[in-house]
Amino acid sequence: MDCIFCKIIAKEIPSEIIYENDKVFAFLDTNPVNPGHTLVIPKTHNENLIDTEDELLCEIILTVKKIAPAIIKAVGAEGYNLGVNSGTVAGQVVFHTHFHIMPRFEGDGHRHWNKKPYKEGEIGEVALKIIAEL
Amino acid sequence: MDCIFCKIIAKEIPSEIIYENDKVFAFLDTNPVNPGHTLVIPKTHNENLIDTEDELLCEIILTVKKIAPAIIKAVGAEGYNLGVNSGTVAGQVVFHTHFHIMPRFEGDGHRHWNKKPYKEGEIGEVALKIIAEL
Repeated sequence: MDCIFCKIIAKEIPSEIIYENDKVFAFLDTNPVNPGHTLVIPKTHNENLIDTEDELLCEIILTVKKIAPAIIKAVGAEGYNLGVNSGTVAGQVVFHTHFHIMPRFEGDGHRHWNKKPYKEGEIGEVALKIIAEL
Repeated sequence: MDCIFCKIIAKEIPSEIIYENDKVFAFLDTNPVNPGHTLVIPKTHNENLIDTEDELLCEIILTVKKIAPAIIKAVGAEGYNLGVNSGTVAGQVVFHTHFHIMPRFEGDGHRHWNKKPYKEGEIGEVALKIIAEL
């Protein structure tokens, strides 16, 4: 399979490994939002979060919980954003599930998301549509 | 406790509820990035991801997996961003753990994160610092 993350896990492509166990692998993003930007990925190939087995997803989020404090402390950050981009429209580039841990610093220039308020009555309609799909 | 999300869970404050079980609660953000923007939160109060019990974190991420496809389908989105903001610097406003599911549409005007490349040799030093904190 021609997946760059599978090659990184197999160590065919070198990376700065932060943590690994039998199920997950964490390494530094070479093109970071801020220093210490880490990717946590499952060792088995899955395109994105929805395709990833329950047990693996739990392992990923518990790895985030485990390593985020070390990342923050190491780079002297004041917080972090956890992010998963699902789909090209959301900024996903590599189609192997990955969770971004992005350390944040005061005045680092990154913006928060812009909000777009609902029109009158729209929020209730949207809720009903979602519930109907569940 | 004066936590707006605890009040939403207790239904003292109304919300557009998408899903709930004994451990987690999912409802529409009233000030969304795009329509369908949903917050998944644990029913017990925890300030952020790192303070949240392992079992609850698993339940949250599995709830994201369960409901994200319904959200995407209901609003006709092409993908989504999952996001957790930890700390004021990262945009956290309510200090009760919450995972944002943000549907995305082509041309919705939201930007991706800006990257800031490492200086020569810096990435290896950062990795060593993080590993030393683990």
